[in-house]
Amino acid sequence: MAQIPESPPTLALIRPEIRSMRGYTPGEQISGAIKLNTNECAFGPSPEVRKVLASVADDSLRLYPDPVSRRLRETAAARHGVAPDQVLAGNGSDDCLTILYRAFLAPGDVVHVPWPTYGLYETLASLQGARLARIPYRQNQADARWELPDALGEGGAKLILVANPNNPSATLTPIDGLRRLCERAPGMVVVDEAYVDFALGAGLAASMLPFLDVHPNLVVLRTFSKSYSLAGARLGLLFAAAPLVEELNKVKDSYNVNVITQALGIAALEDRAHHAQVIRQTLEQRARVEAALAEMGFTWPASAANFLLVTPPARGLAAEAIYVALKQRGLLVRWWSSPELTDKLRITIGKPEDNDRLLAAIKTLI
Amino acid sequence: MAQIPESPPTLALIRPEIRSMRGYTPGEQISGAIKLNTNECAFGPSPEVRKVLASVADDSLRLYPDPVSRRLRETAAARHGVAPDQVLAGNGSDDCLTILYRAFLAPGDVVHVPWPTYGLYETLASLQGARLARIPYRQNQADARWELPDALGEGGAKLILVANPNNPSATLTPIDGLRRLCERAPGMVVVDEAYVDFALGAGLAASMLPFLDVHPNLVVLRTFSKSYSLAGARLGLLFAAAPLVEELNKVKDSYNVNVITQALGIAALEDRAHHAQVIRQTLEQRARVEAALAEMGFTWPASAANFLLVTPPARGLAAEAIYVALKQRGLLVRWWSSPELTDKLRITIGKPEDNDRLLAAIKTLI
Repeated sequence: MAQIPESPPTLALIRPEIRSMRGYTPGEQISGAIKLNTNECAFGPSPEVRKVLASVADDSLRLYPDPVSRRLRETAAARHGVAPDQVLAGNGSDDCLTILYRAFLAPGDVVHVPWPTYGLYETLASLQGARLARIPYRQNQADARWELPDALGEGGAKLILVANPNNPSATLTPIDGLRRLCERAPGMVVVDEAYVDFALGAGLAASMLPFLDVHPNLVVLRTFSKSYSLAGARLGLLFAAAPLVEELNKVKDSYNVNVITQALGIAALEDRAHHAQVIRQTLEQRARVEAALAEMGFTWPASAANFLLVTPPARGLAAEAIYVALKQRGLLVRWWSSPELTDKLRITIGKPEDNDRLLAAIKTLI
Repeated sequence: MAQIPESPPTLALIRPEIRSMRGYTPGEQISGAIKLNTNECAFGPSPEVRKVLASVADDSLRLYPDPVSRRLRETAAARHGVAPDQVLAGNGSDDCLTILYRAFLAPGDVVHVPWPTYGLYETLASLQGARLARIPYRQNQADARWELPDALGEGGAKLILVANPNNPSATLTPIDGLRRLCERAPGMVVVDEAYVDFALGAGLAASMLPFLDVHPNLVVLRTFSKSYSLAGARLGLLFAAAPLVEELNKVKDSYNVNVITQALGIAALEDRAHHAQVIRQTLEQRARVEAALAEMGFTWPASAANFLLVTPPARGLAAEAIYVALKQRGLLVRWWSSPELTDKLRITIGKPEDNDRLLAAIKTLI
């Protein structure tokens, strides 16, 4: 087949913001490797999910899905004590983020995030031609806390995004701090609660959902990719004031959540016992990984999630070398070359046998 | 629970383009009704699809899907005689359209479509702050043909979208006309081949895919929502020059196609016998519906798809009245109030028993 020219003139038609930006880099996927690099859940989804898969009717596949995921939103609303018209369902919470960015940001608008945080927030800003300002977390060396910077949301930022617990630090910002941010910031405050179920499972008052009706500029995001073990199915939820959700509905793709995922989400929400058990098992494994890493001299800020941002002991291999050596042994953890993270590794809490292998491998490296 | 104010001040933070636009209106969904209003396939998906659903592993659900749908793209590339890096997979072809709009259109840019066509093209332009110009089809009254207007793509349009076969007319633009458009237009020519399998099944040379390497400004879209009976699963494919696909990959959501849909798409592409049979059955039913409607005095432009854009006979009820009366009988067809379509109905070809009921109902109304 004839080859097209290497750089066809049509590339010049692409928006310059896109041409000049780098795409988002998802975590590595290596066949057969143990994945402790993308913070998925260690344990499987509800067995009810399997029954749903077996029962998907031909006509469900053949016909368009419900464009507004009504039954799923009703189930989620009942579960979280909000009204269904305060809920929007997305093709993963990445889709919810994309919808927010497209609804609020014109070229040149400003987004604030405390830094470091989830890298996608910056990619999505570039896509809109918006400018993301990284406001460094106040890192308290004494107790390893990460605190929200005072400048967050100042100077006309239209969107302020806070992952809580934060990724990659796994640290939790207290609710009071987020509520003060909502009160003083003139922009929208988006609290991405992807990992909040692990904090709630540990008995922490960690969610902003109870305050949805108090702060009209609050948006809360949840995902099914973490505590619900459904990263493969793509499902996220956005919670906001009903008039905002109505506007956001204009922006989403008409049929953004497929029929199977809508049904899986309902089944996952309804099996509360399984959900609680998965969280408990994850917290047990986290405690056990923490004990072993502490013994080897690793340090990390207190984790409220299913992962740890660890700094290796000074006497042994550096973070990058550990990452490379673990990868050679079929164990994927996350390492970034950026200066603020280069001495650290982000490690997802895995299944018991995965954690065994990880800890044994690290022991040989330290 | 406390009520938020009716119009919170945060609504003012939404981009004015979004505030002022109307959302896209998907076709009606009424429980229990026979749906002949959204051009889904009359017949079910491949039985292989059911096997795939039964075999989805817990770990597939638990872990993130392949972000670039590699195996699916390889299967599609082999099926269509292109290279895998000329293919992008989307969460429905609506997602592919969204990706194109976001990649190419800055606020103020111009999109051209021959009119009337798929309404979503205009909604997506509004979302980008772009201006869509409707260039009327040349409708030849003598032989009821719909021909591409000469002005299409002139005057600096960055994107030109042509649905082929067109929706809602079901008419086919000959390949030669589209190739001339690619040659003379300075913008990107996006040919949306959602319904092309029905034209190909009727022996027409209807697809632009064989010319992908000849026209660097050509983009071809395909969907699994029509001839593959997977509207509920959300899957679309975009075909373009590899360097363009590379740029578009930056724009798509990182994990835009879920793991189940990727697997269903592969199974659907591989069961070519089932696909051919579904198309043959649809064309048989179309011929039979056409014969009955012709006898009742309906007229329509020649259909190359799984639906008809019919004008009722002058002596009987008007299109709107027929639409309303059919809906009361549990039969959904599509009617638009816009002046260029108000005297017409779009009717999807259904299962034999659905077509029986439709034709019997229309007979009592005419």
